[in-house]
Amino acid sequence: MALIVQKYGGTSVGDLDRISGVAQRVQRYRSEGHDVVVVVSAMSGETNRLVGMGQEIAGGTPDPREMDVLTSSGEQVTIALLSIALQRLRVAARSLLGDQVAIRTDSAFGRARIQNIDTERLRGILSQGVVPVVAGFQGVDEGGNVTTLGRGGSDTSAVALAAALSADECEICTDVDGVYTTDPRLVEAARRLDYITFEEMLELASLGSKVLHPRSVEFAGRYRVPLRVMSTFEDGPGTLITIESENMEQPLVSGIAHARDEAKITVAGVPDIPGIASKILGPVGNANIEVDMIVQNTGADGLTDFTFTVKRQDYEQALELLEPVVQEIGAREINGDNEIAKVSIVGVGMRSHAGVATRTFDCLASENINIQMISTSEIKISVVVAEKYMELAVRALHAEFDLQDA
Amino acid sequence: MALIVQKYGGTSVGDLDRISGVAQRVQRYRSEGHDVVVVVSAMSGETNRLVGMGQEIAGGTPDPREMDVLTSSGEQVTIALLSIALQRLRVAARSLLGDQVAIRTDSAFGRARIQNIDTERLRGILSQGVVPVVAGFQGVDEGGNVTTLGRGGSDTSAVALAAALSADECEICTDVDGVYTTDPRLVEAARRLDYITFEEMLELASLGSKVLHPRSVEFAGRYRVPLRVMSTFEDGPGTLITIESENMEQPLVSGIAHARDEAKITVAGVPDIPGIASKILGPVGNANIEVDMIVQNTGADGLTDFTFTVKRQDYEQALELLEPVVQEIGAREINGDNEIAKVSIVGVGMRSHAGVATRTFDCLASENINIQMISTSEIKISVVVAEKYMELAVRALHAEFDLQDA
Repeated sequence: MALIVQKYGGTSVGDLDRISGVAQRVQRYRSEGHDVVVVVSAMSGETNRLVGMGQEIAGGTPDPREMDVLTSSGEQVTIALLSIALQRLRVAARSLLGDQVAIRTDSAFGRARIQNIDTERLRGILSQGVVPVVAGFQGVDEGGNVTTLGRGGSDTSAVALAAALSADECEICTDVDGVYTTDPRLVEAARRLDYITFEEMLELASLGSKVLHPRSVEFAGRYRVPLRVMSTFEDGPGTLITIESENMEQPLVSGIAHARDEAKITVAGVPDIPGIASKILGPVGNANIEVDMIVQNTGADGLTDFTFTVKRQDYEQALELLEPVVQEIGAREINGDNEIAKVSIVGVGMRSHAGVATRTFDCLASENINIQMISTSEIKISVVVAEKYMELAVRALHAEFDLQDA
Repeated sequence: MALIVQKYGGTSVGDLDRISGVAQRVQRYRSEGHDVVVVVSAMSGETNRLVGMGQEIAGGTPDPREMDVLTSSGEQVTIALLSIALQRLRVAARSLLGDQVAIRTDSAFGRARIQNIDTERLRGILSQGVVPVVAGFQGVDEGGNVTTLGRGGSDTSAVALAAALSADECEICTDVDGVYTTDPRLVEAARRLDYITFEEMLELASLGSKVLHPRSVEFAGRYRVPLRVMSTFEDGPGTLITIESENMEQPLVSGIAHARDEAKITVAGVPDIPGIASKILGPVGNANIEVDMIVQNTGADGLTDFTFTVKRQDYEQALELLEPVVQEIGAREINGDNEIAKVSIVGVGMRSHAGVATRTFDCLASENINIQMISTSEIKISVVVAEKYMELAVRALHAEFDLQDA
């Protein structure tokens, strides 16, 4: 008998039939003797509908406090409906709003951080054999105001509850049956992973694999909450995201991630003096444009080429912002390319094995794919290539590192 | 400068344009220097949608606690949207949920009673020049559970807030411009009343005039909160519902109410012994069928005829319930009529004037309308007539008591 926190996303509770299906799934766990805490999102599309109304009536940027009151109503509907569906199956259940749990956060409306979770009420409910059905995504600040945790917030709610309750496992129940070695839409032979480490998952999550929000993975890693991604609709073990274990055989590479819709900007012929990087990236950051990879090369002439990548949607704005900067710092020119993509090889195994980088570059070279930028971390190698080569690069690397389905 | 509580119903906040319209209306009051507390309902249709979902997924009667969590989300959406709309007009505003106010109730989910309102937070917000936008219909019980006040609950919320804050007036802003002498759809010459007393309004409200929920009128009367029914969409003074004033010239009759969809049941030839009434009405009440008028006549033979009215929808069920009772108590027979209507004359003026009953009966007799039942209170005379005569009776009495538009 274990204590399990289960989180069901918007698609899993997308209509009344699906909510009833979730109730049956919870019932199965209960009949196996487990204690279950359920965390749910708003029904799919609901949060967007509410945000749309708020923006329309504001005619601009709506007040974030009021937006949190507005959007948190979505999860409120789901917890009530799921509790009713559970009771219909004779499973005792009780809905809990963020402030009823209580999930205490700071007051950063729209992107609040969880500060503290009071588990007394939850434990009391569990001890009565009742399933607490908790509204994800929402909390309450010190002043009693409703707060929300931002996109992916329900994952974070679930992980935080699992951590606070020292749950045996936190299950993220979704519409995919686990984490794959790469995008199955690109590579048919992509394989579901039984295990992956938090660090690898974090790299994959932030690289565009949509399965889990990076914040929830980080949180789970920090508090060592075993996290399992699995399907709401099909049986199966899913993928367990866990800490690296001594006796776990680590593959060299766990997965290949990709991010299309990237763009790169090069400020060329920059005098190589201190403070240049912040002069270039300052205005971009101030405009809330996220910069990803940054590469700087100094030539023999004492001039440097400064290249960085941004999301493609921010490309034109970033170029415009930098026009005056180029003048100011006396750079030779600015140019860019918005038809690039990023491909990344992720694996904790590469920590202790040399040669992964070489194999990566050789593999791409043998396919005649030119590498435009390289960025590495301890467990990741990212390369920027022309967008048209992205699929080929992913497939070639997937084969190179033996990730194919058996 | 006054402190005014304004309540806007579902039709008044039925879409984003209307919510923006309400914001403009509140802005006007603010610019005139008034302090305003706004109470809102869910957008029209929303509560029914939520109730429908809850009932569907329950496949029966859903848990009332969870239904309150579900339905209260409707008002939550409206308070956020109206606050945003006010802020767009540069009117400082802050939304407040039932528990944030706090509106403390008992734990009778779905029909909770307000026990206490903490006005400290509200006064603090008002003193900062901010408009509190309060979710109607909802409260919080001692255990921190969400409760709702039942149908018409937002009116009650507004009146209770006005009472707790000792507001100068509570405005019920709706889609009609006041209380009329009778239904304008029946009598073209129906006239809007400038004033009406709480007692009269209570009789009219419970007699099927849909403007105000009886509970809110009762509440306003008890706490002497001046209550004004007025249009959200048009300018005008509306109708002030107030206490009877010494120097207010009271008309004999203030209004004529009617209720179609009534039915009457007669248990005839009942032995006239104590306890008969409860033997007859007990099973009906136990089935949650509301009994309205009750008349008992005893004949010379020691046998009595016992007649009462119910809503037409409950007629068949009530007859069935009484079949065995008729046997048991040795009554001669049971019969009924489900094509009747009730017409009522209401006015505090009739207290001090004899002859209103006589004029009523004479008026109906002169139209050849047969009176089937009569029931009177201090300020009301109700008669049951055949449904087909209802319109004629209302028009004749409206003319008889000089209620016509000038």
